[in-house]
Amino acid sequence: MTRPNPRAYRLGEIVERFGGNLIGDPDLPISRIATLESAGPGDLSFLSHPKYRPQLQSTRAAAVIVKESERDATDRPRIVCDDPYLYFARVARLLAPQIRPAAGVHPQAVVEPGAVVAASAAVGPWCHIGREARLGERVVIEAGCTLGDEVEIGEDSHLHASVTIYPRCRIGKRAVIHSGAVIGADGFGLALEEGRWLKIPQTGRVIVGDDVEIGANTTIDRGALDDTVIEDGVKLDNQIQIGHNVRIGAHTAMAGCVGVAGSARIGRHCTVGGAAMIHGHIEIADHVNISAATLVTKSITRPGTYTAMFPAAEHREWTRIVAHLRSLDRLAERVRELEREMSKREKRKR
Amino acid sequence: MTRPNPRAYRLGEIVERFGGNLIGDPDLPISRIATLESAGPGDLSFLSHPKYRPQLQSTRAAAVIVKESERDATDRPRIVCDDPYLYFARVARLLAPQIRPAAGVHPQAVVEPGAVVAASAAVGPWCHIGREARLGERVVIEAGCTLGDEVEIGEDSHLHASVTIYPRCRIGKRAVIHSGAVIGADGFGLALEEGRWLKIPQTGRVIVGDDVEIGANTTIDRGALDDTVIEDGVKLDNQIQIGHNVRIGAHTAMAGCVGVAGSARIGRHCTVGGAAMIHGHIEIADHVNISAATLVTKSITRPGTYTAMFPAAEHREWTRIVAHLRSLDRLAERVRELEREMSKREKRKR
Amino acid sequence: MTRPNPRAYRLGEIVERFGGNLIGDPDLPISRIATLESAGPGDLSFLSHPKYRPQLQSTRAAAVIVKESERDATDRPRIVCDDPYLYFARVARLLAPQIRPAAGVHPQAVVEPGAVVAASAAVGPWCHIGREARLGERVVIEAGCTLGDEVEIGEDSHLHASVTIYPRCRIGKRAVIHSGAVIGADGFGLALEEGRWLKIPQTGRVIVGDDVEIGANTTIDRGALDDTVIEDGVKLDNQIQIGHNVRIGAHTAMAGCVGVAGSARIGRHCTVGGAAMIHGHIEIADHVNISAATLVTKSITRPGTYTAMFPAAEHREWTRIVAHLRSLDRLAERVRELEREMSKREKRKR
Repeated sequence: MTRPNPRAYRLGEIVERFGGNLIGDPDLPISRIATLESAGPGDLSFLSHPKYRPQLQSTRAAAVIVKESERDATDRPRIVCDDPYLYFARVARLLAPQIRPAAGVHPQAVVEPGAVVAASAAVGPWCHIGREARLGERVVIEAGCTLGDEVEIGEDSHLHASVTIYPRCRIGKRAVIHSGAVIGADGFGLALEEGRWLKIPQTGRVIVGDDVEIGANTTIDRGALDDTVIEDGVKLDNQIQIGHNVRIGAHTAMAGCVGVAGSARIGRHCTVGGAAMIHGHIEIADHVNISAATLVTKSITRPGTYTAMFPAAEHREWTRIVAHLRSLDRLAERVRELEREMSKREKRKR
Repeated sequence: MTRPNPRAYRLGEIVERFGGNLIGDPDLPISRIATLESAGPGDLSFLSHPKYRPQLQSTRAAAVIVKESERDATDRPRIVCDDPYLYFARVARLLAPQIRPAAGVHPQAVVEPGAVVAASAAVGPWCHIGREARLGERVVIEAGCTLGDEVEIGEDSHLHASVTIYPRCRIGKRAVIHSGAVIGADGFGLALEEGRWLKIPQTGRVIVGDDVEIGANTTIDRGALDDTVIEDGVKLDNQIQIGHNVRIGAHTAMAGCVGVAGSARIGRHCTVGGAAMIHGHIEIADHVNISAATLVTKSITRPGTYTAMFPAAEHREWTRIVAHLRSLDRLAERVRELEREMSKREKRKR
Repeated sequence: MTRPNPRAYRLGEIVERFGGNLIGDPDLPISRIATLESAGPGDLSFLSHPKYRPQLQSTRAAAVIVKESERDATDRPRIVCDDPYLYFARVARLLAPQIRPAAGVHPQAVVEPGAVVAASAAVGPWCHIGREARLGERVVIEAGCTLGDEVEIGEDSHLHASVTIYPRCRIGKRAVIHSGAVIGADGFGLALEEGRWLKIPQTGRVIVGDDVEIGANTTIDRGALDDTVIEDGVKLDNQIQIGHNVRIGAHTAMAGCVGVAGSARIGRHCTVGGAAMIHGHIEIADHVNISAATLVTKSITRPGTYTAMFPAAEHREWTRIVAHLRSLDRLAERVRELEREMSKREKRKR
């Protein structure tokens, strides 16, 4: 969570920092970035998708970021660049820096003996920091977080309120972890013993690399014996479930509600669409894109896009589709029958 | 969460309040509402689904609520009305009023400077109320909630334990928010920069209207630039994920485990079945019903019911269906071949 | 969460406890259990899946647990038994006993009047224990948990950090409940009143049997009138949603992200794969297995495996499958046409 910064930048300053071609007054002050629809004076806006082109005419933005191909689509002051969305991202980061609470441990936090909290770190009220835990420089732990014994949090990481990290897990540098996330709960390891489930102790850890973001209420289970590993630069949206002993390769991003079953290994630079599900004990290569709501049951060895989902139809139409699907066996049989009949007649004729 | 009220009402009093046709003794005391199966003396029960009609004979309820068409299906004292389920809801609300903790801020809560808590509001232990936050009259905040700076909660709203609301979000009046819900975490906004994900600051808010219910562990992300908006009367079940910049129209209800991707606009008076998924950047008209476990990938412009889901079959049968589906290409080709052959022979004959 | 125990056992001691056939030195000390790949000296490993057989050659484990059929597949000291996975589970439990915090209520916990906490129980900081709640012998409640009024927790149960249990719910003995779980929030009970949703008070409870495990961020709603019931030995993974008035039979296990809608009754000894969804008001017999990502819309009366899911395909292939599916109506029509034509000609010929 961030909020607008009161400091304004001149349009020329922005182009000096991030490049691009400026058409218009470099002294225009920019204090905020906004969508084409809601922008007003003092705001910089951007066109990243042709769908919003009509709004380019009506926007009240002080200036806009556009592609080369849209250079003449507006008379407004504009920055022409290769990737307006990326440009927008950079400017947005400039204009909306993170707000950090003051350093120090809140008097209403419990820090157990042996824990080391860097002097520049901030720990909010109602936190519980376990024995031998280590919090790096400039770490922020907001209210109500629980960090188990021997947890390590790398410098500049930010845990929002009510994050739980079980003992011995390690989080890298510059992580952002949102509220309700649970890192290091027991994996779902059970053995059947005469019809009853025997719990298998989960003694591995969760190891999270640098520059990882973990969404609200996402859960990442600790390994059974070895560790669950989230590599550098991975981005996980909300309500994702990562089973024990999973490995997610660097710079892979997953949208909300994804589930990854135990011991799956996912490559680097992959994307996984919302609510996709990945079976356990399979491997997915680097640079694979899984579509939303798709189930992956087998290893994928080649880069590409993989899909298995049906888009909604009107209920009546859908009911017919399901009925046909259920009788495909019969339809295939009828086609076979026709083929037999056809070839029989062919022979008869000869 | 509510619990039975010890106060009893006479059957006649109930009919005076809520209407309907009373057959039987108006002086019967009613202190509880119960299912046909578990009701005992002193309990009022109801028949809302024909499936439960056999239980009408065996119930030990003091009285029952039935439709006109079931008027003579029992000899018990009964209230005859148009909609027994709605009638039951009204009586249940009468008999089980919310229990409110005593007003006041628990000594073990941290309220930051500038926050305004109405005198009639109750704040439980281990809460953290941010700077400039505003809590309206009779608001209840149970234990362990975190409200960020400048959060506003409208009068008579009730936050159960361990709810997190990020800074600057606004909740309307009479909201019920269940434990573990996270309102206002960052949306999943990323731009690709040479194979790495650059986080886009999320500076919008979440704005929630009046009379909204939000289920346990549901997450609603703040907008990227503009706000995420949940209109009046929306009801969200547990474990729902709402992406950034979504708008949900008034009086729409969603069952558990639904996911709505960023910038989707959902109409008013819609229903969304459990585990349905809605793609981003699409629009759904008013009065649309999405079936459970259905994926919506495109805008829906007309009211109606939309579906895309396959009901479970025995595993062996299902395996055949999938095999047929995979070879539909081949089956279609064989049908084309038969058609060609058929027309060839037709010509030959002439 | 557990961690390795420093105490070592002799291989012979282990076989005395758990049976099996020992080949090799009974005096070998074993202090840890590890996978074939990561095991080192002093570690016991196991082969439970033929996929890992090649690792049997390269492992550096001190000893291994194998099936009769693998008796001669290695020269290492080994335990030969019927079910190496179950054997591993037993040894793992021996070597990694639960760590329990010291008994007592942390000074930074609020225990309301009338609550009874057994002397051997441990309550962590920032917990809130409601009026008349009862915590049995050796119960562990970690930091930040909220237990409502009259909640009961059976002996030896362990609640990890930030668990919420609403008033009047009951948890049996030896439960393990992971962080972020919410037990007893209101079920999603609504009645329509002129286009608006009227909330139906949820006055039932959640009753959880003995030996139940509940995963991180799993939610189990309280009953509307009667109770939601989780029977003995049920194991629920993370992010599962259980609606109101559901009953789950003893020794049933559900993997992550499963949803069960209201009033469903699930039998005993069932398994439900990850992300499966079960409709409300249906019944599932004992010994039923539901595959991952499968939707169950109707009651299942016979044991067996039930499935409805499509595995991912390359995107282009999938697009063709969907197109064919959508035109199945037309294909079926064409087959009918061919059949008619064929029989017409047959008649003509006669």
